[in-house]
Amino acid sequence: MRILVVNCNTNADMTASIAEIAAGAASPGTDIVPVTPSFGPESAEGYYESFVAAAAMLDAVERVDEPFDAIVMAGFGEHGREGMRQRWDAPVVDITEAAPMMANLVAHRYGIVTTLSSAVPVIEDSLAHAGLQHRCVAVRASEIPVSSIHGSVEAVADALELEARALLDEGAEAIVLGCAGFAGLDVVLRERLGVPVIDGVDAAVRLAETLVRARLTTSSIGAYRPPSTTKRWTGWTAAPVAG
Amino acid sequence: MRILVVNCNTNADMTASIAEIAAGAASPGTDIVPVTPSFGPESAEGYYESFVAAAAMLDAVERVDEPFDAIVMAGFGEHGREGMRQRWDAPVVDITEAAPMMANLVAHRYGIVTTLSSAVPVIEDSLAHAGLQHRCVAVRASEIPVSSIHGSVEAVADALELEARALLDEGAEAIVLGCAGFAGLDVVLRERLGVPVIDGVDAAVRLAETLVRARLTTSSIGAYRPPSTTKRWTGWTAAPVAG
Amino acid sequence: MRILVVNCNTNADMTASIAEIAAGAASPGTDIVPVTPSFGPESAEGYYESFVAAAAMLDAVERVDEPFDAIVMAGFGEHGREGMRQRWDAPVVDITEAAPMMANLVAHRYGIVTTLSSAVPVIEDSLAHAGLQHRCVAVRASEIPVSSIHGSVEAVADALELEARALLDEGAEAIVLGCAGFAGLDVVLRERLGVPVIDGVDAAVRLAETLVRARLTTSSIGAYRPPSTTKRWTGWTAAPVAG
Amino acid sequence: MRILVVNCNTNADMTASIAEIAAGAASPGTDIVPVTPSFGPESAEGYYESFVAAAAMLDAVERVDEPFDAIVMAGFGEHGREGMRQRWDAPVVDITEAAPMMANLVAHRYGIVTTLSSAVPVIEDSLAHAGLQHRCVAVRASEIPVSSIHGSVEAVADALELEARALLDEGAEAIVLGCAGFAGLDVVLRERLGVPVIDGVDAAVRLAETLVRARLTTSSIGAYRPPSTTKRWTGWTAAPVAG
Amino acid sequence: MRILVVNCNTNADMTASIAEIAAGAASPGTDIVPVTPSFGPESAEGYYESFVAAAAMLDAVERVDEPFDAIVMAGFGEHGREGMRQRWDAPVVDITEAAPMMANLVAHRYGIVTTLSSAVPVIEDSLAHAGLQHRCVAVRASEIPVSSIHGSVEAVADALELEARALLDEGAEAIVLGCAGFAGLDVVLRERLGVPVIDGVDAAVRLAETLVRARLTTSSIGAYRPPSTTKRWTGWTAAPVAG
Amino acid sequence: MRILVVNCNTNADMTASIAEIAAGAASPGTDIVPVTPSFGPESAEGYYESFVAAAAMLDAVERVDEPFDAIVMAGFGEHGREGMRQRWDAPVVDITEAAPMMANLVAHRYGIVTTLSSAVPVIEDSLAHAGLQHRCVAVRASEIPVSSIHGSVEAVADALELEARALLDEGAEAIVLGCAGFAGLDVVLRERLGVPVIDGVDAAVRLAETLVRARLTTSSIGAYRPPSTTKRWTGWTAAPVAG
Repeated sequence: MRILVVNCNTNADMTASIAEIAAGAASPGTDIVPVTPSFGPESAEGYYESFVAAAAMLDAVERVDEPFDAIVMAGFGEHGREGMRQRWDAPVVDITEAAPMMANLVAHRYGIVTTLSSAVPVIEDSLAHAGLQHRCVAVRASEIPVSSIHGSVEAVADALELEARALLDEGAEAIVLGCAGFAGLDVVLRERLGVPVIDGVDAAVRLAETLVRARLTTSSIGAYRPPSTTKRWTGWTAAPVAG
Repeated sequence: MRILVVNCNTNADMTASIAEIAAGAASPGTDIVPVTPSFGPESAEGYYESFVAAAAMLDAVERVDEPFDAIVMAGFGEHGREGMRQRWDAPVVDITEAAPMMANLVAHRYGIVTTLSSAVPVIEDSLAHAGLQHRCVAVRASEIPVSSIHGSVEAVADALELEARALLDEGAEAIVLGCAGFAGLDVVLRERLGVPVIDGVDAAVRLAETLVRARLTTSSIGAYRPPSTTKRWTGWTAAPVAG
Repeated sequence: MRILVVNCNTNADMTASIAEIAAGAASPGTDIVPVTPSFGPESAEGYYESFVAAAAMLDAVERVDEPFDAIVMAGFGEHGREGMRQRWDAPVVDITEAAPMMANLVAHRYGIVTTLSSAVPVIEDSLAHAGLQHRCVAVRASEIPVSSIHGSVEAVADALELEARALLDEGAEAIVLGCAGFAGLDVVLRERLGVPVIDGVDAAVRLAETLVRARLTTSSIGAYRPPSTTKRWTGWTAAPVAG
Repeated sequence: MRILVVNCNTNADMTASIAEIAAGAASPGTDIVPVTPSFGPESAEGYYESFVAAAAMLDAVERVDEPFDAIVMAGFGEHGREGMRQRWDAPVVDITEAAPMMANLVAHRYGIVTTLSSAVPVIEDSLAHAGLQHRCVAVRASEIPVSSIHGSVEAVADALELEARALLDEGAEAIVLGCAGFAGLDVVLRERLGVPVIDGVDAAVRLAETLVRARLTTSSIGAYRPPSTTKRWTGWTAAPVAG
Repeated sequence: MRILVVNCNTNADMTASIAEIAAGAASPGTDIVPVTPSFGPESAEGYYESFVAAAAMLDAVERVDEPFDAIVMAGFGEHGREGMRQRWDAPVVDITEAAPMMANLVAHRYGIVTTLSSAVPVIEDSLAHAGLQHRCVAVRASEIPVSSIHGSVEAVADALELEARALLDEGAEAIVLGCAGFAGLDVVLRERLGVPVIDGVDAAVRLAETLVRARLTTSSIGAYRPPSTTKRWTGWTAAPVAG
Repeated sequence: MRILVVNCNTNADMTASIAEIAAGAASPGTDIVPVTPSFGPESAEGYYESFVAAAAMLDAVERVDEPFDAIVMAGFGEHGREGMRQRWDAPVVDITEAAPMMANLVAHRYGIVTTLSSAVPVIEDSLAHAGLQHRCVAVRASEIPVSSIHGSVEAVADALELEARALLDEGAEAIVLGCAGFAGLDVVLRERLGVPVIDGVDAAVRLAETLVRARLTTSSIGAYRPPSTTKRWTGWTAAPVAG
């Protein structure tokens, strides 16, 4: 089985870090294919960057020239999920959905810790669209920009712990890490907090494998009926044009 | 890994059928332990039977005398899920949650086909409580009682197809089979309808394995903080009483 | 008129206390028949105990061998209400519904003070299912276990007052006592707080009488169509099996 | 105990009819005081008439010169309820709330049959504001104007039955009569339909008695803190002016 | 174009102040016709006063004897809007809708600062009915009664600023002034806070002009089908009775 | 005043048609600047195309080299709105918001007629995100692709009328045209249907002018705080990079 893991930004180091987490979550025999968009910002932290990242992720997958069985979208809260599902019949798992789903299976209420406050409304929108806000206590920002995550693991863990404890006080019983770059911090925080802590990439790779094994592919009727392949596209080389 | 698969009724034939589906979904190395309640109705199709079944499932798991890694609750819409989660730290996957979650990953809207109309409000309540009604088009009854499912596979498939097509007309893009006894019909209907069709037991076993592999256990704070072990219980031999 | 008042736990002292409140609320000529389940925990404070209590209450009413006109379910937040309604055509009033309904008639927003925090999500679910969460400011726990209520009335009143005042600060204009065991504290707190304070047993007995006088019985179609009387039941002597 | 029963329109015949229903619902010893507004339309069937009727009902109660223990507002869906509650501490029961509350106690879902379609959105707003739309299947208009109700009981019953059956088909399990003028038709329709049918005036009088007996009065803080008595009012003789 | 601007209270000074704001917002060639109700309270700050004000505004417009192109209702949160729309086909803009609509176009979330806390639930109801509560962070009261607004502009601005800053802390990104009498304070607060601050009268006059220019009139079917002109009205000289 | 009117697709003829409508709606002295994206599909009718169109519209506005006062986004249901608002302080009006807002001011419920059914869920999402679904009866597809709109006005009008009448039957009282390409059809349908019919481009240009005249600009805090100008962007020449 081959799973594409698509970073939402153009930072190849982050793609590598995400791929490492993905590989750790994957079963033996599953190939993780990391994909980095060819255009866009070095990190996506707000509506503007997120909309460019959405197009960039669609473009990047269009350019993959090997077959694949599933797609993991590794941008927490980023747009594009429904477009990806419409385009391919291979199942698409967005980390923004995967981690809350897992959280709902092991806790009555959960909370999310993310990077900057500019990312919060984008994540809230994504949850609402997926119907996952119902049991989410809150999305809190640690104010750690994506670019600083790899500075000091200890400092990042401390900042996340602070917000996670605030979420527990508000009623959360499990914590979702709201950034694809918080690699490995789930283990650290699970230890510190004594509650389930869920990393989106880890959760998404596992769910993607599950869907493939269950032979489920995305429905091709209604909202996800594939886009027309006979339209004229301009200035966009990676369009779903026939033949 | 050992997964308990708990039937909601006292019909041992149905437990066997469920166990067969579960075994088919499980990975090599996973042991499926079928559990049949020692009391209750031969099928649960409505509020009254569902509340007795809830207690019966809690009782049945309490009596299991081997260690286990996860619990699959195989009664579609039946009560008791939150009690099960509160009692054990092994992850609990209810088929009522598992199949809709899978459906949400491969379709924008889904619909559920169940047995009798008396089961419909019970299922709707369970979805609402789990936050999964958001993208559910409707729950439709085929008016096939659980007891008749094993009569003629063809006749059951025909009845389910009829309701499933009505759901597709209402906007569903994937179908969830709303009874643990619809074993094997997912494959038949997938073929007939050309859309994803999801069996709850299959989905739940896969998700339970996923949670165990991800080393996630149920949170022990808040709603699922384990029940007191020092209370006095009367007339109930399977209580969570200490030592 | 004869009203069953069903305790949710096996503590006969609490049943007696509830029956006393019920008798105080009943009109002359109304007989209060206290019912104590024959199995279950000595108090129900969380999902696990609540699901066993639900089955125990259904069982207990099945064993009543005199005719009755209405059923009051005296477990605040406990499960089983819809099963009870399905089973009998005598009207069923759950204290979890009765007190908030009364509160809605005399206040724009209300709040609930209950026992332990483990009971809070169970109560919230019950309100949501009944459509009564709309104007509920919050459910707050006094952290007084049911077992300690009868220690010192003064101490209990103080603890409830503290949480009630917090609810008033959050916007509540009336207080609902969220435990069948808070007998008589409505009068004390009404005095202390100067706002309507409503006891569930008192409210439910009054509403049950009202329904009986209005000759209303539970609908026998749809969700509450009576359960089948021809099913095979195992290990459960109090099943609705046809004579 | 003395209960004001306030008609929403200026039709004295309808007040008399309402008073008769109210008297039939009241216990021995309860005095029903019928109140007819001194201004407004002969029937209220839509937003415009409803807003004038709201002011007229407030005015009419202000002019009552005997003490009273409770107020029943006998206009189905009409505005003014919250103003009435703010003004007096005697409990206020609106028939728009009373009948759905009763319905919720004996059915999982209910439907409302009213007069003209112009009344439907007004009723829907009132339910939404009270939090009672949650389990209401639909509000359907019989297109019988209030003025024609007293023509032929048989014809009115037939028209209501038609809409009521449509509501049952849509999932309703009990019927609420959505007009204070449908006096006595609850009995006829209960017979014809075999499900609970609830008249608002009957329900409201019973609930008003219940509140009085429970010594509950409207909260005087927050939304229902009484209006200022020191404001200058112009052209409105029935203002809550001090002294 | 001629726009009626209807004050909700009988204070002619406030009408003059509102008319001044309206004139400032109007384009050259638009005539602002101020309308003061002939009856009611000097200010409307709660349910009771609001329901009388609703009827008084309907009455006042009925008495206008010149043609007009649009109606602005200048009572923040006051009732009557839907009755006004039903009665006339000239478009009706309520300041309670206008300002939040503008806020939604320039901010993701907004908050409202109003006068007394008794006005808060009335405003919340109005927003909910209009579907505008979705992105409203909160309605906060400055506890400045309408009658004191014209005392000291500086003191009023200080009080509003305090509550506005609290709203910004809660996540608001724009502020709506929740009283028709806060004339001119939008400019002051915009300066102080550095975020969009919106006055309802200003917004409503602009939207009213926009609707007139777009040749949009209120729909005359469904909820806003004009009231009957053949009904008998009593004690109300300004009824919509046919010629 | 200069208003950018941004087409969502690369079809310059459609841009011209949109600009014509915009010019017709604009006041004297307002310059309409039509903007066509330099990349993307010739029409956007579903999630996939919509996400590319969102990035293309952001890119296109970034390349405008003259100052402007407001932005109209002329793609009904298309993504990108929040990104546009975050990036510029000039007010942004999306036709998907503008027409429903106008409809809410002149009708109690409205319906939307759009092109293909693949566009329906995208529009529903946009309404939900804006809080405008509350009073929307339904979004119905005429199944006329954008590319065929300019074939026969009569045939298009007939198809839209059919769906519009279905919406009126479902309770809509006004109709919103759900495609920027339905130019001029509002007038035709208003005539045919006798209810308000609203074109999004017309409505949006009018609201944009209104915001500019009211000196309102997009809030620069919270969700719309401008994106960082110091990030590294790759392969995207129109990024918000500082100086």
